[in-house]
Amino acid sequence: MTTSPPRDGARPILDMNAFDPATTGSAAVQRRLSNFGAASVLFYRQPIEMVSAKGAWMTAKDGTRYLDFYNNVPSVGHSHPKVAQAVAEQIQKINIHTRYIVPIVDTYIEALKSHLPEPLSNIAMTCSGSEANDLAIRVAQAATGGQGIIVTETAYHGNTGLVTEVSPSSLKRGSLPPHVITVPPPSRHHYGSEIAKGFRTSVETALAEFARRGIRPAALLVDSIFSSDGIFADPLGFLTDAVATIRAAGGLFIADEVQPGFGRTGEAFWGFERHGIIPDLVTMGKPMGNGFPMAALAARPEYLDRFCADVGYFNTFGGNPVAAAAGLAVLEVIRDEALQANARTIGALLQDGLREIAAVDARVSDVRGAGLFIGIDLSDEHSGHPDPDLTVRVMDAMRQQAVLIGAAGRYGATLKVRPPLCLNEAEAAQFITCFKTALSR
Amino acid sequence: MTTSPPRDGARPILDMNAFDPATTGSAAVQRRLSNFGAASVLFYRQPIEMVSAKGAWMTAKDGTRYLDFYNNVPSVGHSHPKVAQAVAEQIQKINIHTRYIVPIVDTYIEALKSHLPEPLSNIAMTCSGSEANDLAIRVAQAATGGQGIIVTETAYHGNTGLVTEVSPSSLKRGSLPPHVITVPPPSRHHYGSEIAKGFRTSVETALAEFARRGIRPAALLVDSIFSSDGIFADPLGFLTDAVATIRAAGGLFIADEVQPGFGRTGEAFWGFERHGIIPDLVTMGKPMGNGFPMAALAARPEYLDRFCADVGYFNTFGGNPVAAAAGLAVLEVIRDEALQANARTIGALLQDGLREIAAVDARVSDVRGAGLFIGIDLSDEHSGHPDPDLTVRVMDAMRQQAVLIGAAGRYGATLKVRPPLCLNEAEAAQFITCFKTALSR
Repeated sequence: MTTSPPRDGARPILDMNAFDPATTGSAAVQRRLSNFGAASVLFYRQPIEMVSAKGAWMTAKDGTRYLDFYNNVPSVGHSHPKVAQAVAEQIQKINIHTRYIVPIVDTYIEALKSHLPEPLSNIAMTCSGSEANDLAIRVAQAATGGQGIIVTETAYHGNTGLVTEVSPSSLKRGSLPPHVITVPPPSRHHYGSEIAKGFRTSVETALAEFARRGIRPAALLVDSIFSSDGIFADPLGFLTDAVATIRAAGGLFIADEVQPGFGRTGEAFWGFERHGIIPDLVTMGKPMGNGFPMAALAARPEYLDRFCADVGYFNTFGGNPVAAAAGLAVLEVIRDEALQANARTIGALLQDGLREIAAVDARVSDVRGAGLFIGIDLSDEHSGHPDPDLTVRVMDAMRQQAVLIGAAGRYGATLKVRPPLCLNEAEAAQFITCFKTALSR
Repeated sequence: MTTSPPRDGARPILDMNAFDPATTGSAAVQRRLSNFGAASVLFYRQPIEMVSAKGAWMTAKDGTRYLDFYNNVPSVGHSHPKVAQAVAEQIQKINIHTRYIVPIVDTYIEALKSHLPEPLSNIAMTCSGSEANDLAIRVAQAATGGQGIIVTETAYHGNTGLVTEVSPSSLKRGSLPPHVITVPPPSRHHYGSEIAKGFRTSVETALAEFARRGIRPAALLVDSIFSSDGIFADPLGFLTDAVATIRAAGGLFIADEVQPGFGRTGEAFWGFERHGIIPDLVTMGKPMGNGFPMAALAARPEYLDRFCADVGYFNTFGGNPVAAAAGLAVLEVIRDEALQANARTIGALLQDGLREIAAVDARVSDVRGAGLFIGIDLSDEHSGHPDPDLTVRVMDAMRQQAVLIGAAGRYGATLKVRPPLCLNEAEAAQFITCFKTALSR
């Protein structure tokens, strides 16, 4: 545990396999750099110009059709016609903030709430997962009177000032503020066979450190599948003890569902649900509108009451009728196309195929996950150590075969498998074939 | 100058003329309260259910057509067909983050940059004005090495944790942190005939207070038409001295164009442009996508470079191709329909009509503004003091005549006139007639 980001020897995840601005890119890349400057984050040494996308496929300017195993935002499939139609219809009718009543907004909130545990009956709509986590932290601090936030060591919870402080993976230099303490994620690597106990002990140690610093705890905030830590999904229930521990200390448990939510894990609609926990606050975003900018905080009403007693909260674009239409279409598509079940079935096929590779290739040192959120650890075959260079080579070799994939984890040596939830068997098989080829190069 | 929000006797602006949750509302209102809880902010004691909107008009469920003099987000007109069509076309083609190149994104950024002063050549796209201001503050702090932010006393700059700290109008209780100092806005009320000099002196006093506290200044952050302070537009150039003062002290000048930007002031595309200043950082939002959630920070590249050396910044939804399509359509509509010129012409007609009323009614104590952003001060006719109760009564009387309008300012006694920029002469005349009637009741 440390207040410095524990990223010794690790690369900033954001920069992994990114275009290097020091090199000369194409005219399109130069144009981008002159527009975005230092805030430009392009994938690949040779960035890709995309012109269209459909289902699990993206088409580049040169005609290459890429199989998308990276993008978790267009979760029900790129350019889904039902979402596109819902947005097109609503935006020509009315698009306004929530100071007036437009019934589709409440229809959506009620549809969303039907997926949430009953105690979380208030929804604050925002534009981004960052805004949702920013609000969640302040709600937890107001509700508990504490300030301390416990997060995992390679966590990413967003890009606002407040949320960057609890996102050690964003820091290129500098250290975390005193009210933020990191714990290792609940992984076999850190805790052996006693993951639940080990994770609880880490949270206890963090609480003791807060006590030493004279800081009262406000919350344990985790991505419930630990996406940027490297994807840790099992054993089920590994969070229960840690959640009890933070609550016993007067803090809340915030489940960040921005990445695991909306059926991706196959086994449940939310990541926390797999573990049988009811959080105090839940944040969500990315796949919520299949790319339409929208996100939310779900809260027990008494916590929101407490926060709103001090500060007014209003989000101009949050919960507008077009966002509601997009979100409603996403929920309907997940249901009508049985995408959660599909994520489970196809995810299991993928894991089987990957385990077959791992059984014969020591460089594939672990395969884990749930549904269509899978982590593949790549290691040096001799030392067994995480191998970020191999990971970059594999990502590039996949790209040569027109498959998009990214990396995560403390060492950037975990391939992050997160295709759209509409992925079919043939597409899964194609990924396995390409992955074998990439490893053989 | 004070670190406490100087809102003695003032009502929280957010709550002005709002539905009181302690009362029993309609079924639709009850539904909203059970969904949004304490974060529900509904206009009017009897909130309005809206079903559609077009141009400057919104249609309620009961068939009433409201003339919209409040909403500055659907700035080129509610449900504008060109914006709706641009969104509908792009969302069925491709909608993805900026880690790949999609040319419409750069086409949009370049169109936007053609309206900005040349030194501000880097654009960071975000989802909301709050995110843009949150980033701007951190960029200014990284660029200057300072922490101190000077804002006006009733400022509102957004809803994230960081930005709420510089938004005294959001605070219901508590005080501002030591690194935030407020100054009175550049108004005749505060500074008499020496507005520029008075405002500069306030900034100097704030800088001296920072020195006393051992805090280095980072920025002077102002809404360039002082929207929530009560709308202060003249005399032209009243910011120049204060900007020179903050720069001489090592701080930056951040122009928050979330409300005045995109042609609303008639005389220029941006609020700062009217005053002949080139800011160091510019933030924008609300009207940028006519309601599509999008916002941005424009920066001198060297400041963004400095910030990005410490922390990675990536915004998943920021700058997506659908936002770019919406933003591009907005710029085209402003140009093709000559909306900036229309804002000037119709705004002048409105000001003339309002001044005629002020000449014969002592309760209308001041009329000021630029283009279609006008403030009307309402005062007690005997004491001459700001009259928030009269303001609420006038807002309600306007609503009875199917005209939507809101309030701003330290005492909530300034009517905020901000209709869509497509407003025509007949609609302006109708407003004047209704306002006369409202005052006569």
